[in-house]
Amino acid sequence: MNYNIIPLNELVNQFSRLPGIGKKTAQRLAFSILEQPAEYAEKFAKALIEAREKIHFCSCCQALTDLDICQICSSPQRDRSVICVVEGPKDVMAFERMNEYSGLYHVLHGVISPLDGVTPDKLKIKELMSRLSNGEVKEIIMATNPTVEGEATASYISRLVKPMGIKVTRLAYGIPVGGDLQYADEFTLARSLEGRNEI
Amino acid sequence: MNYNIIPLNELVNQFSRLPGIGKKTAQRLAFSILEQPAEYAEKFAKALIEAREKIHFCSCCQALTDLDICQICSSPQRDRSVICVVEGPKDVMAFERMNEYSGLYHVLHGVISPLDGVTPDKLKIKELMSRLSNGEVKEIIMATNPTVEGEATASYISRLVKPMGIKVTRLAYGIPVGGDLQYADEFTLARSLEGRNEI
Repeated sequence: MNYNIIPLNELVNQFSRLPGIGKKTAQRLAFSILEQPAEYAEKFAKALIEAREKIHFCSCCQALTDLDICQICSSPQRDRSVICVVEGPKDVMAFERMNEYSGLYHVLHGVISPLDGVTPDKLKIKELMSRLSNGEVKEIIMATNPTVEGEATASYISRLVKPMGIKVTRLAYGIPVGGDLQYADEFTLARSLEGRNEI
Repeated sequence: MNYNIIPLNELVNQFSRLPGIGKKTAQRLAFSILEQPAEYAEKFAKALIEAREKIHFCSCCQALTDLDICQICSSPQRDRSVICVVEGPKDVMAFERMNEYSGLYHVLHGVISPLDGVTPDKLKIKELMSRLSNGEVKEIIMATNPTVEGEATASYISRLVKPMGIKVTRLAYGIPVGGDLQYADEFTLARSLEGRNEI
């Protein structure tokens, strides 16, 4: 008994290579492709190819874009005196969803992590420095993640940037909005106390 | 502030059309495509197109196959006197995983459900009947799901087949292996008692 449908197995394999998609889910998804009209598979295939072909890093801020210079870098409405430095392209999207930040971004594409072989020259730090040379930028907001590596990267970049007379700030630490104090870990609570504001 | 990457949005849309994939998961999956080498997207796209193009229904048993007659129908090792009638192509796979059934299959592609507009002529019942005409088949195992519609379909087909002198059987109902009696519903338990066997 050897019931094998090779093209189906191949599709299941491709689905199961996606993060968080196990064998069973991959099978379910592959079946759903077969159950839907052929145009869906064609559109899906086209979307895959086009996304991979057209999307690349903005030559200025290194965020994802399908243009040469991304919409944010080329927008005249953006405040060109502030650059928010983030780890990855998804962080740019998180900031944009907030709809309250009007400055520019710079995506590092990682954090300094010598144990994983990520040294500063592997990140887009050179590109950041060259953006600062024209004197237009007044403030750098370090928005790397609040992890050991994120902290190390923030302080590394801050040491490079400060001598240029540019203000370097870091996102505030504290308890998340809607969070519950009793579940806050002691480090977060300590930082939240340290950074308290007058009301 | 209008940060839109059209090819990325399109890919997210395609992913979120898959069953059980929400907006957030679709975004995560779309990003993972961008993070992986371009060959992955190409292979995935090819697998999608090929699966949809090459896979169709076996002209004999109506199961999924990429051949004209599926591997099961064309296998000389299969017992051609028994046909197991199932609702969908996934059920064939469930039976094959069991590795204990050596007969043939017939896929109905649905169950009779007048409320949903599924009348017997919409199912592959005609095709089943024509397979029975050569007198080779001695038994039909009705393996539709244990639902109201599955039952109705089983008894409808059984009424058609019995006059031809072919034995019609139904899968046994009972408590699932490894199940816990205290959680068994009363209908299952009643059927399990009714169908008890001597040991």
